[in-house]
Amino acid sequence: MTLSSIASSQSTESTVLVDLAQQTRASALQLGMLCAEARNQALEAIAQSLEAAIPEILAANAVDCEGAQAEGIAAALYARLKLNDTKLKEAIAGVRDLAKLPDPLTIVQLHRELDTGLILQRITCPLGVLGVIFEARPDAVVQISSLAVKSGNGVILKGGKEAIRSCEALVKAIHQGLQHAEIDPAIVQLLTTREETLQLLKLEQSVDLIIPRGSNSFVQFVQDNTRIPVLGHADGICHLYVDQAADIQKAVAISIDSKTQYPAACNAIETLLVHQAIAPDFLLEAITSFQNKQVELRGDSRTLEILNIKPATQADWSTEYSDLILAIKIVDSLEAAISHINTYGSRHTEAIVTENAQAAATFMAEVDAAGVYHNCSTRFADGFRYGFGAEVGISTQKMPPRGPVGLEGLVTYKYQLVGNGHIVATYTGDRAKPFTHKELL
Amino acid sequence: MTLSSIASSQSTESTVLVDLAQQTRASALQLGMLCAEARNQALEAIAQSLEAAIPEILAANAVDCEGAQAEGIAAALYARLKLNDTKLKEAIAGVRDLAKLPDPLTIVQLHRELDTGLILQRITCPLGVLGVIFEARPDAVVQISSLAVKSGNGVILKGGKEAIRSCEALVKAIHQGLQHAEIDPAIVQLLTTREETLQLLKLEQSVDLIIPRGSNSFVQFVQDNTRIPVLGHADGICHLYVDQAADIQKAVAISIDSKTQYPAACNAIETLLVHQAIAPDFLLEAITSFQNKQVELRGDSRTLEILNIKPATQADWSTEYSDLILAIKIVDSLEAAISHINTYGSRHTEAIVTENAQAAATFMAEVDAAGVYHNCSTRFADGFRYGFGAEVGISTQKMPPRGPVGLEGLVTYKYQLVGNGHIVATYTGDRAKPFTHKELL
Repeated sequence: MTLSSIASSQSTESTVLVDLAQQTRASALQLGMLCAEARNQALEAIAQSLEAAIPEILAANAVDCEGAQAEGIAAALYARLKLNDTKLKEAIAGVRDLAKLPDPLTIVQLHRELDTGLILQRITCPLGVLGVIFEARPDAVVQISSLAVKSGNGVILKGGKEAIRSCEALVKAIHQGLQHAEIDPAIVQLLTTREETLQLLKLEQSVDLIIPRGSNSFVQFVQDNTRIPVLGHADGICHLYVDQAADIQKAVAISIDSKTQYPAACNAIETLLVHQAIAPDFLLEAITSFQNKQVELRGDSRTLEILNIKPATQADWSTEYSDLILAIKIVDSLEAAISHINTYGSRHTEAIVTENAQAAATFMAEVDAAGVYHNCSTRFADGFRYGFGAEVGISTQKMPPRGPVGLEGLVTYKYQLVGNGHIVATYTGDRAKPFTHKELL
Repeated sequence: MTLSSIASSQSTESTVLVDLAQQTRASALQLGMLCAEARNQALEAIAQSLEAAIPEILAANAVDCEGAQAEGIAAALYARLKLNDTKLKEAIAGVRDLAKLPDPLTIVQLHRELDTGLILQRITCPLGVLGVIFEARPDAVVQISSLAVKSGNGVILKGGKEAIRSCEALVKAIHQGLQHAEIDPAIVQLLTTREETLQLLKLEQSVDLIIPRGSNSFVQFVQDNTRIPVLGHADGICHLYVDQAADIQKAVAISIDSKTQYPAACNAIETLLVHQAIAPDFLLEAITSFQNKQVELRGDSRTLEILNIKPATQADWSTEYSDLILAIKIVDSLEAAISHINTYGSRHTEAIVTENAQAAATFMAEVDAAGVYHNCSTRFADGFRYGFGAEVGISTQKMPPRGPVGLEGLVTYKYQLVGNGHIVATYTGDRAKPFTHKELL
């Protein structure tokens, strides 16, 4: 193939994708106007068609797994790729749980009379079309498609190539469910090639939000290659600060939980900061627990005076291990801990253990992160634990939505203004009529 | 200067700017922790020091105006550059009005018990540091600085080079006010060179939001050259649709107001869509009013059968005239009008005139825009008219904040979680304790 023929074939494919996205948008518009009950019934129809398709889905998945093993897939990836009856039934139960959640659409956020007969409302509405790019895990198809149906959005999915048959079988069943509910199956689309991923990132006219689910470097790549808003976080460098006034037993338990309860999670801690006044007592108490959990510890020079562990280097303060490794640094003050966190943290979730209310208040005010915690584990940073019912993703950007994001992250709002011939000229100039600005909510 | 010396001098300047932004951030952190009363007192101190500096500010402005005239500045720009006693006093009154608005900080948006003794709150907090780049208009310095103080943010301002002395005099007075209120003047910084603007756009580690105020092409340039979130809109292509069931008198009055009340505004209409069934009656009634207001009309072929006006070309449907020009298109149906708007509109503000409630409901549901209006002028799309008290900007992006944005657009939130040794291990596995998820708000 010559370069020009590649370019022309790409531009043809790109047109195909533009049309597909426009079709998804048009279908989503209809979906978004259905009442909550109709969207929830569609979720039930999807759950039923997935149940009926379990043997077919597992057969497709078995072929994917065989192919992946032949290519020597890593064990962790294989575990995520492999479906079984239990995993599928859990995913289907998740669809039904979603149907029970409150409707995120048509929520009136503001209702105000501007003047007699001129009424302003701010009402939630769907975003439009979501682009979701994920790795191995085929059950993500079920979760993401059902989140889209619940929130009245269309979704263009791109799964990993190793999961292609599983994803196709899942989407086929979802389409059957949608058809049964008399909803255009075009609201859920599945892409299969890497070229399509790149094209998807360019569709700023027809895709409203990109949700990348994968490694940090992948999320960063997506952020750098699209003008579409991206919901996701590139890093999860979280800290636990054990204050001078910490209860040592609480500090040990929270440290262990924050590091070891699920070390690959973004809300696990990477660095433990310890106030110098409590460092000997705390560290000598904690070390056995960490050793019992096989945690590799790395300490700064002052920590090495207390513990016989590996030295930490400058690079450790900015590393997300996603593994049973923990860096330890002794600090002279609360302010030094806050400064370290605001320098190296990824603004995800940061915790203090202390019995001193004033120290806790300072920490929570001054630390710049989506979650600031006092006397509890950073692992609580999660949409389900927060009671959102569903989690769309965790965002470390500063602007809302920030932190764990539930269905709220898949909707936007419109201002609706209804008058009876009202014009602005009436409200301007020397004889301007004043607005009433009366709250009706 | 050799290329390498330019590069090294740029990198030096860039370090200066990074330090300046970090200093602004540190000072803003202190500001954000002050109570509402202290921030409002600072606004009063700023108002007083501006009042005291009026002669000095006007003298600086006179020098700017002289220089601009010598360089042959356009009349419209000159009008924006030129300050006088009235303009300044209005800007100062705006500072005092802002002090009276409700505090946007420490609003509890969510308050939930996750389990006994484990309490989650979502609380509004400042964004951190704003970067605001604006053209001529020096009074913007006053408005933007006071919005920053009110919302607990630092701000780095970059004004147009023609207004440099005016901006410096205004910032000097604002710094005096801040000092009087014992607030670090570093929260308000003024940049003066174009190179600094480009560097500002790269400071994603220390600037949280960029607000460009200027031409469409300038906003687009900013969006394309920064990874920092941008609050602003590149286009304002708004439509008015005169439905078959429109009241002709209302339709004429609303058309005239939407086009002529302030044609340079982004919420003025550029295209009038008219249902074919009402087109002859409406257009023949409206033409005199448009002629009286010196509006140049351009029509599609069907409009030209009714009115003797210039023909519109394809380019007219995507043009923001910002002037007394209006394109007119006759459509066969409500659906055709909606389709035209969703194709050519900039998602800003779109209006329908009709006495048919069902048509209005369809229009408001299906049109994709921040504002969807029924029987009123598009010119109402404005933060002050919506009752926000202050307007930070108007956003045409799909994600919130969308439409006219008040102080709400300058704050974000944090999740604060307070426990008493709570760990996630308690809530997972076979013997998982359930969450209570009890609302406390």
